[in-house]
Amino acid sequence: MQANRIMLVGLKDFPIVEAGDDLAKMIHEAAVKNNVTINQGDVVAIAQKIVSKAEGRIVRLNDVQPSPRSEKMAKAIQKDPRLVELVLRETKRIVKIAPKTLIVENKNGLICLNAGIDKSNVLGEDSYALLPEDPDRSAERIRAGILKLTGKHVAVIICDTYSRPFRRAQVEFAIGTAGINLFKDYRGQQDLFGYILQVKNVAIVDEIAAAAELIMGQGNEAIPVVIVKNLARVDGGRSALIADLWISREEDLFKNAH
Amino acid sequence: MQANRIMLVGLKDFPIVEAGDDLAKMIHEAAVKNNVTINQGDVVAIAQKIVSKAEGRIVRLNDVQPSPRSEKMAKAIQKDPRLVELVLRETKRIVKIAPKTLIVENKNGLICLNAGIDKSNVLGEDSYALLPEDPDRSAERIRAGILKLTGKHVAVIICDTYSRPFRRAQVEFAIGTAGINLFKDYRGQQDLFGYILQVKNVAIVDEIAAAAELIMGQGNEAIPVVIVKNLARVDGGRSALIADLWISREEDLFKNAH
Repeated sequence: MQANRIMLVGLKDFPIVEAGDDLAKMIHEAAVKNNVTINQGDVVAIAQKIVSKAEGRIVRLNDVQPSPRSEKMAKAIQKDPRLVELVLRETKRIVKIAPKTLIVENKNGLICLNAGIDKSNVLGEDSYALLPEDPDRSAERIRAGILKLTGKHVAVIICDTYSRPFRRAQVEFAIGTAGINLFKDYRGQQDLFGYILQVKNVAIVDEIAAAAELIMGQGNEAIPVVIVKNLARVDGGRSALIADLWISREEDLFKNAH
Repeated sequence: MQANRIMLVGLKDFPIVEAGDDLAKMIHEAAVKNNVTINQGDVVAIAQKIVSKAEGRIVRLNDVQPSPRSEKMAKAIQKDPRLVELVLRETKRIVKIAPKTLIVENKNGLICLNAGIDKSNVLGEDSYALLPEDPDRSAERIRAGILKLTGKHVAVIICDTYSRPFRRAQVEFAIGTAGINLFKDYRGQQDLFGYILQVKNVAIVDEIAAAAELIMGQGNEAIPVVIVKNLARVDGGRSALIADLWISREEDLFKNAH
């Protein structure tokens, strides 16, 4: 394939994932069934939900005993106290609390609604999925598993769907990675006319996550894994900490912007 | 191609665009040169910069006479008063003003740094590109032009690279569209287990823009147009106003979140 062509292939009919499942093996098998060859340098984008399931991060609300603090907070913002309890257990810092709204920084530094705890595509009426405990470690485990099974060095991006400020609706973001540089940094390079670029630094793993979501979907598509091929601009050699993607409040130009 | 495969093709060696150029014609010719057939339902993602150039939206700072207000503001935030003047001319509302930082809502409702005014890939040491005056109209013009030249109904997304709150570095967003529904709305649909989805509504045009940027790049790649093929989840039949992507402050859950 030429350098100006990217192909994304979703692995169809992916089996339902359960606690303890070996995702690397399932991805390898699903790729074979889908006639997709996993190659060196491919990026494997994986929906957070199946990682959480494989890691047993599914919780039934009926099994949750809310603390007095969660009870009080839940009443104030009209949410289920058991869900508030789950969110607070995953939380490092409350970013915003308002009726029906709980935005937090979770223990890994990700800022999002409800600490990313979510009901969709989880079996059981009162069952919710927590985010993986350490999504970078989850990604690395899957990367290593795929290397063992196929002999190919791939990058892995675990991704999830999030609301964002200023723009309506949700897009897919990276929440954990392995074997890939998070950024394509153009600072110090020349543009078409020799001008030295000052600020361009692209969060390439977020863009790959967004691209993968175009195939994954959110409903009953059963395509939780997308293989991205021929990403010429991606530096797949280096692993990075997803925490490098979280901008500090001091650096965030949008701090106090409304 | 199967429904689970998306292909993105960048149009290489795209000529330098100048004021008055016919972008639909240039895209058609570049597609032919790149051996890319434009098909019904393809999405044509176009970097804002070439649209601005074609529409003559390039301004030399030396030609700008800053107002007293711009002079004062520029001094307070340590910016070039002529650049501040340009930003304010494009601005409906100042969202945040701080040293070296000017975030505004532009006249089309887009919230971003410096009203999207930018130096990269513009010829001339003191030349800056303003955003297209009405990006939806620009997109529609190009869509109609491609239809006339090829007989094919495509969707057009004009996209640009933006910083965003909470996450480091930039990603590509849609700033104007034609022939495409902005969203893939899952609300009311069932997930894998029959649960009715409550909030999932995906800003699909932003995800397509992000995907296209993976080929476009920011430097001297000279690939300002990417054709996206086989997007099964995209409703290309309907045109929508990009303004539907701007969330009101009342609806924005992230309002006052830091």
